[in-house]
Amino acid sequence: MDQVTLSKPHDRLADALSDEMRAVDRLIRDRMVSEHAPRIPEITKHLVEAGGKRLRPMLTLAAAKLCGHQGDADVKLAATVEFIHTATLLHDDVVDESAQRRGRPTANLLWDNKSSVLVGDYLFARSFQLMTETGSMRVMEILSNASATISEGEVLQLTAAQDLKTTEEVYLQVVRGKTAALFAAACEVGGVISGAPEEQVDALRAYGDALGIAFQIADDLLDYVGDASSTGKNVGDDFRERKLTLPVIRAVALASEQERAFWQRTIEKGQQDEGDLDTAMELMRAHDTLEDTRLTAEAWARTAREALEVLPEHPLREMLSDLADYVVSRLS
Amino acid sequence: MDQVTLSKPHDRLADALSDEMRAVDRLIRDRMVSEHAPRIPEITKHLVEAGGKRLRPMLTLAAAKLCGHQGDADVKLAATVEFIHTATLLHDDVVDESAQRRGRPTANLLWDNKSSVLVGDYLFARSFQLMTETGSMRVMEILSNASATISEGEVLQLTAAQDLKTTEEVYLQVVRGKTAALFAAACEVGGVISGAPEEQVDALRAYGDALGIAFQIADDLLDYVGDASSTGKNVGDDFRERKLTLPVIRAVALASEQERAFWQRTIEKGQQDEGDLDTAMELMRAHDTLEDTRLTAEAWARTAREALEVLPEHPLREMLSDLADYVVSRLS
Repeated sequence: MDQVTLSKPHDRLADALSDEMRAVDRLIRDRMVSEHAPRIPEITKHLVEAGGKRLRPMLTLAAAKLCGHQGDADVKLAATVEFIHTATLLHDDVVDESAQRRGRPTANLLWDNKSSVLVGDYLFARSFQLMTETGSMRVMEILSNASATISEGEVLQLTAAQDLKTTEEVYLQVVRGKTAALFAAACEVGGVISGAPEEQVDALRAYGDALGIAFQIADDLLDYVGDASSTGKNVGDDFRERKLTLPVIRAVALASEQERAFWQRTIEKGQQDEGDLDTAMELMRAHDTLEDTRLTAEAWARTAREALEVLPEHPLREMLSDLADYVVSRLS
Repeated sequence: MDQVTLSKPHDRLADALSDEMRAVDRLIRDRMVSEHAPRIPEITKHLVEAGGKRLRPMLTLAAAKLCGHQGDADVKLAATVEFIHTATLLHDDVVDESAQRRGRPTANLLWDNKSSVLVGDYLFARSFQLMTETGSMRVMEILSNASATISEGEVLQLTAAQDLKTTEEVYLQVVRGKTAALFAAACEVGGVISGAPEEQVDALRAYGDALGIAFQIADDLLDYVGDASSTGKNVGDDFRERKLTLPVIRAVALASEQERAFWQRTIEKGQQDEGDLDTAMELMRAHDTLEDTRLTAEAWARTAREALEVLPEHPLREMLSDLADYVVSRLS
């Protein structure tokens, strides 16, 4: 397929890494199987086959290939990263009592909370086994640190929810936990197992971190400015769920006394009436926080692109760079 | 303190390892702290300070000391093992909707299911970070395999619950997941980080496995024959919760057609009337399965003791041997 029909950088990456991604999918299927607990693949199949964009394993594969990786550790780590991601989705489903995930009913509605918790634990354990097979202590450190950041971010999100005192700093920590920590680790381990120079490993990590932050800020912004038919979410879901994301945090910081009372009623107390979403949108527009948030996402995308400069010239490097643009392109 | 006042092998172990256990407790407190999510120690403190018997970290410390360990990896791994154990307790609480754990309200009643899942994940991640600090790939493999066995066992228990087709083999797999896998790994890593000969490492693993199985079978049997005031559980809780433990599995295997109908009604369908627990006890007595189960627990305790024979002579070896006796002594 040529690059005209494959215009999205994500699709071009998938095309450039198709052999490796097939090997990753095979490995994921093999390692989901439990000799002793046949229900496990029943649940994981549902999630893994729903597919998602497989962005995280592609980051690992792309980083490794870019750094001249030889062997099969890249495939193992790509599967590891997808297992960790899938495990966090399973645990999120329990946590959020969310009814939809990737447009399908969540595992915890089809089965139950018990299975979601335990099968998530199983996938964590499996990911852990897979990464030990690379024999790299440094990989273990990177992924264990990422796991700690992920769960800290999730707990932080829980405690920050509905709290108008939430700062941009706390928001950024939550975003790192939710998204950027695993993006950064996925890229970094790709460099590490390829024996890339430290400067390149650092650059890969910085790229993944900034890409993840840009991606999550864009996602949060799309909740207010997105097109429901393409995002699959309704406008204002986060408002209704009283989540403090960047455009709201900034609007609260700039609020007059009267506006503050509005945010206290709707977010802290959760007393929401018809028309409140419209008012919230007006306040964010009045303080320009939707536009400011877009600029922040774009700045992170730029940081991601710039990080790539120390890496060797390679078509994959261009695709990664384009990917950073792409995650924020939906905003303008 | 002399051995007369410290008659329980568990207390003698605690006394012999008191310096190391203090270091473990300090490390646990230090590593529970989350810079970003202050709610975490709030929840874990509750669990870790409730204390429990700290049996698993003592196994690691005893195994290491017995094999002449030098350094602080033993303390790190003992804390690792306790973190893994605490994380599984937090996730079990969600899973079982249990209202009591170690005589205190469970974390998920004091806080909520969300916190239990996420803080459990945090402790898993922390345990993982701690073990990487030992720098031993072999330790990583042992503990990742144990983690997989634990979660497989938990899922298996879920699917086997209320299923009269549950075999002794499935029961044993569940018991390995619930208890023996972590006991075995706790002992094994103590040997590994001490550079003990393979024969001794294998023996430590075999000891932990058999000790864990004896412990869990005894625990399940005490649910029927124990004294509520010392076990803290009501007689017949497992029956009411329709759990298939060894004495019931054996009674079902030996059941007449009429008896089978009784088990189907009470366990599979969950239709339990007054007097049904008495009938269940009668059936187990009639087929001698309570006594047979006791003999099985004792046989595993013997296996545990025998495994220790290849280890160096040492007072700690005697305490571990006595511990195997002790876990089944409550049964006679």
